[in-house]
Amino acid sequence: MKMKKNNFTEQKIISKYLKTLSLNKKGTFNFENDAAYVNLPHKNYKFTVTTDTILENIDFFKNDNPKSIAQKITTVNLSDLYAMGATPHSYLLNLCLPNYITNDWLKSFCYYLKKIQLKYNFYLLGGDLSKSDNLIISSTFFGYINKNINVYQNKVNFNDDIWISGNIGESKIGLEIIKKNFVISKNLKEYFINKYLYPKPCKLGPKLVLYSSSIKDISDGLIGDLKKMLNNKYGALININKIPLSPKAKKIIYINKKINIEHLLNAGDDYSLIIVSNAKYRNKIKSIARKNNVKISLIGKVTKNKGIKFDSFLDINNIKEYDHFS
Amino acid sequence: MKMKKNNFTEQKIISKYLKTLSLNKKGTFNFENDAAYVNLPHKNYKFTVTTDTILENIDFFKNDNPKSIAQKITTVNLSDLYAMGATPHSYLLNLCLPNYITNDWLKSFCYYLKKIQLKYNFYLLGGDLSKSDNLIISSTFFGYINKNINVYQNKVNFNDDIWISGNIGESKIGLEIIKKNFVISKNLKEYFINKYLYPKPCKLGPKLVLYSSSIKDISDGLIGDLKKMLNNKYGALININKIPLSPKAKKIIYINKKINIEHLLNAGDDYSLIIVSNAKYRNKIKSIARKNNVKISLIGKVTKNKGIKFDSFLDINNIKEYDHFS
Repeated sequence: MKMKKNNFTEQKIISKYLKTLSLNKKGTFNFENDAAYVNLPHKNYKFTVTTDTILENIDFFKNDNPKSIAQKITTVNLSDLYAMGATPHSYLLNLCLPNYITNDWLKSFCYYLKKIQLKYNFYLLGGDLSKSDNLIISSTFFGYINKNINVYQNKVNFNDDIWISGNIGESKIGLEIIKKNFVISKNLKEYFINKYLYPKPCKLGPKLVLYSSSIKDISDGLIGDLKKMLNNKYGALININKIPLSPKAKKIIYINKKINIEHLLNAGDDYSLIIVSNAKYRNKIKSIARKNNVKISLIGKVTKNKGIKFDSFLDINNIKEYDHFS
Repeated sequence: MKMKKNNFTEQKIISKYLKTLSLNKKGTFNFENDAAYVNLPHKNYKFTVTTDTILENIDFFKNDNPKSIAQKITTVNLSDLYAMGATPHSYLLNLCLPNYITNDWLKSFCYYLKKIQLKYNFYLLGGDLSKSDNLIISSTFFGYINKNINVYQNKVNFNDDIWISGNIGESKIGLEIIKKNFVISKNLKEYFINKYLYPKPCKLGPKLVLYSSSIKDISDGLIGDLKKMLNNKYGALININKIPLSPKAKKIIYINKKINIEHLLNAGDDYSLIIVSNAKYRNKIKSIARKNNVKISLIGKVTKNKGIKFDSFLDINNIKEYDHFS
């Protein structure tokens, strides 16, 4: 754990708020050293590493709850680890803190980080503190995976199934509501804003690695990320009626007509996984999802013709026939 | 390697400038995945990890040469790895880029990163790109060390020798010149500004781990960092005449009288190492330093009395008798 200047405030931040996040692991040296040692839990594993930066005014708003910031910086990284088939292990935190960050803010931020750490089982290895004009947080996450397994994110085969975990568009609807782009009932408003503020990672990745051609989390929108997975070698035929939407989102789209489904196909930040897999594993994938209590939807197939096409023979507005758990 | 938005500019930054930094290592997936796999070079090693953020207006100035920024973000991290006895392995890069960053800037930045990578033997694992108001760079470095060795940074013993590698105060004098706090000849000016812009890490750490109680790089100044090493359990008696200064720094201090040595004892950014070691290893340490062509100076001893004291019997101004390579 590093401090830019040897001053009281920063020593206090470390000893009072951050130290507890080490979970007393030996290699952290209680954040008294400038680097940490980190060992794999078993010699048959390799490390998976990912890093992400979230910035004020881009990934969150200035007065967002520290609970939301804690959820976002961990989810964005955990989601990448899970998508690569890895199990979370530990992380580093680079905090660039503006003057408006109070002790209460830090206390709350670290309280929620610890809750998330205990839920997903990982600890803080160390980090770095700086002063800045805006709140900017970078975090590097370590996961582990069997050293013989490689999860690819852009290797798919003709006729593979295309699955989506969870629902899409929830976070985007929340953001549109916060931006006051449309008004809806208080109940719906709260639901979607919470989806924007507290996104959760999908833990299915490590359980599906043996049955998938490729797995990727949606960060740029279903269309954008699926396109990357197809890697300019294949195309996809998607059944638009199979796109997983919550009943509340369907209400916003088809009854209140506040937002188009096409808009949500390009929206990120739900951290749903796109799983591309040989059709022979269809039942296996369904049963793993069911066992882990995760909604999963078969939305289409990989085609030889490039480009992503939607099946227009199906009635896009036929909401009642929509099957959540096909 | 992650991108905030799926836009052309950022894909171009990755493919045109960053991709070459992977040195074609397999686990990087050519930066096409959201996470990278990383393996230790041998099962007898463990990873050492450190992370640092450098910010515009704090750690560098807006129009500083990209060569200088590349040197700083790598040196600050390499120095931490070496101080922990680790050999560099790989790194991640989080770039927050403001609008004023041009293609030429990125080309030059990556050119120098690659030069530094090849010099110290490490590669880029991946990273993250964001837009921001100011230039902010976070980087996480991986090193490796024998899994049975633990290098501490605050465990010293009574009567241990205290050594310093290189010279101190060079970078600070450069910064004072840039800030126009004093004027000196063009020749001296260039020398010190280069020391500020292009700090180099000291590679001795991994070679001294078996002969040291503690090793730490100077980031907060000799006094501040030595104090941390003494850990409120011991003190130190320092021979002020043994503090390593370059002939040019001595000229600035004692002849031009532009800056006090006391000022330099609290200055960081030279990345000299403080090595605390049992006196029985004195010759060993000298010979390792000589073999590696690194200047090393024995500046004092660890005392039972707390606090850092300077030997006042010695003549602080007796420059001629100053021995660089004692």
